[in-house]
Amino acid sequence: MKKPSIAVILSGCGYLDGAEIHEATLTLWAIHKHGADFQCYAPDIDQHHVVNHITGKEMNERRNVLIESARIARGKVLDLTKFKADNHEALVLPGGFGAAKNLSTYAFDGAECAVNTDVKKAILAMVAQKKPIGALCIAPVALAHILPGINITIGQDRGTAENVEKMGAHHTATSHGEIVIDRKNRIITTPCYMLDARVDQIGEGAERLIGALIEMIGS
Amino acid sequence: MKKPSIAVILSGCGYLDGAEIHEATLTLWAIHKHGADFQCYAPDIDQHHVVNHITGKEMNERRNVLIESARIARGKVLDLTKFKADNHEALVLPGGFGAAKNLSTYAFDGAECAVNTDVKKAILAMVAQKKPIGALCIAPVALAHILPGINITIGQDRGTAENVEKMGAHHTATSHGEIVIDRKNRIITTPCYMLDARVDQIGEGAERLIGALIEMIGS
Repeated sequence: MKKPSIAVILSGCGYLDGAEIHEATLTLWAIHKHGADFQCYAPDIDQHHVVNHITGKEMNERRNVLIESARIARGKVLDLTKFKADNHEALVLPGGFGAAKNLSTYAFDGAECAVNTDVKKAILAMVAQKKPIGALCIAPVALAHILPGINITIGQDRGTAENVEKMGAHHTATSHGEIVIDRKNRIITTPCYMLDARVDQIGEGAERLIGALIEMIGS
Repeated sequence: MKKPSIAVILSGCGYLDGAEIHEATLTLWAIHKHGADFQCYAPDIDQHHVVNHITGKEMNERRNVLIESARIARGKVLDLTKFKADNHEALVLPGGFGAAKNLSTYAFDGAECAVNTDVKKAILAMVAQKKPIGALCIAPVALAHILPGINITIGQDRGTAENVEKMGAHHTATSHGEIVIDRKNRIITTPCYMLDARVDQIGEGAERLIGALIEMIGS
């Protein structure tokens, strides 16, 4: 039997300006652990900015989201414009500020945010084929923006939860390693580093999310 | 009881010019999973070079090993000159070309390589206190250079194994997820991406290595 192929959209490499590295890595780890395969994608655009992860300050540099994402994907990452829903059984968006700065403008515009055109296209194409979507950490805000009425979690942060509700989604508070499954809309979310977490708790959340996603593929 | 503290030396962020991201992340994950704590370190030096991880070609950029390592460590990384063996129960070196380009010159000089002064100091300080050291992937070559007669694995690559023996170490071939334990010298190694591996196999190797390391702390 062919292994299910799960598409993973990355947003750079490093939680302050790109994809959260532990969430992204543990998503790929969980996909392999569950016997599935992955294909990483990222938009071929400049990062919003580059942040020194020690000081938290902006650096005077430019980096490309697709090229930096390749660090996490060990080179095997495709331009998101090449995404075809036909080639995948599910889609996952790991978190990190990259999801809120490069894939969407959530970090700047909150509930009024815009979502990158190709990210939006990929999400809508999966929804049209009734294929499940998972999102970790802050990445669910992009889903909330595009898919009204879905039930998601971003952990326990009140401001973010309020924004999610403003965008028309329902928010369920969760703790470490927990997932929220919206069976009707085929969306699964988990809070990860939206909580102050240990790395093994990120692994728990990613593993549970991917497990539920793969179960949903077959149902 | 105080959790054991394991020092982790990173070498950048991305396998072609820095630390291998999956190996580093899954090392941190395994440390937390086994109930221990970690402190990341990296040398405050320029990377040997910056590589585009899609094309494999050098980019006309400069990046700092300590600052890039902070992406994997989520900001919590110390300059390696601050390393004190007294503060830690064990030391781990994840792999990636950074271990062979930034922490040592193995990628260029093979068996004749030099090891970064502060990396060498940290390793010797742990050895002097009989504290165990773990190394993944290509990182064992730095140990082979410094500690004659140790028994290590770098997987199955014949050229690397020959170089390791030239440096005076003993090499044991291994497959996915296997570890080599040198009880006398308190060294544990595992091949990870020295083999063509899936991400869950990296997790297996890291988890087994960290488990054996923590067992060794108490013995």
